[in-house]
Amino acid sequence: MQQYFGIKKDENVLYLNSEDLNHIKNVMRMKENDKVIISFKGISYLVTLNSSLLSGTIDNIYKSERDTNQVIAYIPILPEEKMSFIIQKGTELGVTEFIPVEFERNKYKLDKTGKEKKLNRWNKIAKEASEQSHRVNKSEVKEIIKVKEITSLNGVNILCSLDNENVKEINEVLTIDNACDKITLVFGPEGGITQNEEKTIESLGFTKTRLVKNVLRSETVIIFLVSIINYLRK
Amino acid sequence: MQQYFGIKKDENVLYLNSEDLNHIKNVMRMKENDKVIISFKGISYLVTLNSSLLSGTIDNIYKSERDTNQVIAYIPILPEEKMSFIIQKGTELGVTEFIPVEFERNKYKLDKTGKEKKLNRWNKIAKEASEQSHRVNKSEVKEIIKVKEITSLNGVNILCSLDNENVKEINEVLTIDNACDKITLVFGPEGGITQNEEKTIESLGFTKTRLVKNVLRSETVIIFLVSIINYLRK
Repeated sequence: MQQYFGIKKDENVLYLNSEDLNHIKNVMRMKENDKVIISFKGISYLVTLNSSLLSGTIDNIYKSERDTNQVIAYIPILPEEKMSFIIQKGTELGVTEFIPVEFERNKYKLDKTGKEKKLNRWNKIAKEASEQSHRVNKSEVKEIIKVKEITSLNGVNILCSLDNENVKEINEVLTIDNACDKITLVFGPEGGITQNEEKTIESLGFTKTRLVKNVLRSETVIIFLVSIINYLRK
Repeated sequence: MQQYFGIKKDENVLYLNSEDLNHIKNVMRMKENDKVIISFKGISYLVTLNSSLLSGTIDNIYKSERDTNQVIAYIPILPEEKMSFIIQKGTELGVTEFIPVEFERNKYKLDKTGKEKKLNRWNKIAKEASEQSHRVNKSEVKEIIKVKEITSLNGVNILCSLDNENVKEINEVLTIDNACDKITLVFGPEGGITQNEEKTIESLGFTKTRLVKNVLRSETVIIFLVSIINYLRK
């Protein structure tokens, strides 16, 4: 069943925004009394659409479990095709927050207007992927930040590394016992992070971790790691 | 460093095919005495290119570990974009063999010429992804088969299911202890497999297994599962 995120709840009526109305009308071709899922503040409801199609009446709760796990991914700025891929698949697999980082070796630089445009686009992908995978909460893409603004949390903090030395193996760092509710991941750009950036990120509380023996593309690494976290948490 | 798969070995000289020559010359713009990795019969060599660029002299062995793990994935026939995605990412993450299956609910049907064309294209993607991720052996896409031709092996045999009942959980079926060297996976089409197909596949020795709570796209499920296998085998 199609899911949307509501913008307002008024007793047993939930409201959608006009973009969703367009989708309901022109893409899904739905009509009054059709059923959709509407998520609002961490709860998903089964809803019967009203005649305006901009609102619906709650039938019952569809999914009330509040997903409190946080998976925060600091990611490089990659070509659009790869960004869409990371945000779409990452959201499906459980990333709650993406934070693009201005790494020195990012090949793609954005000016202020470019950043705003991209951020809108990326958040649209995040919203659609959240709906498509029936997530109770939307994943979000935050403002682009500098390396020194990366923040570790009280949980598992991983810096994905291509090195073979002075690294921990992924299955030492991530185990069923420590698959805690806050995981923060830092992924570098295609050319790797610089030594300075590495020092900064390590000093911020991240553990350098090696993922797999084979050479993976940047976007594959992200999906790989998020899949494992998803598996360990089941 | 760029990797290719050799087609012939003659004492300490390795030979490439003309398509690779084109890549070496016109894409990589390499010259005589440049170094490449050439894999041949399960061994990767560091090689110095000869003047023709069609062959190279072996300097030493680059990677000799023979990857004996088999990950066989029976996959539905999906739109080309998703097929490329599955074959590229699946290869990077360790799938050794893809076998497309004619499921009843496949939306994409191919005639004989279409099948041949696609198979060539898919194998090209598999070869490039194998080279890119420095795999010693090329992954392969086999001929399209019928459901009743699916074969389980003496290892872990998983039928990925969307059901909530009568299924095993993925972390019961796949554990570090049983991450054996032969894993066979069956993924159904976007509309799911029919009850008859399910019966057939179960009778062939596959265990119905549920993957994650969230709804995943067909192509995401595949990458998710292959990532976990890769992780458990480290």
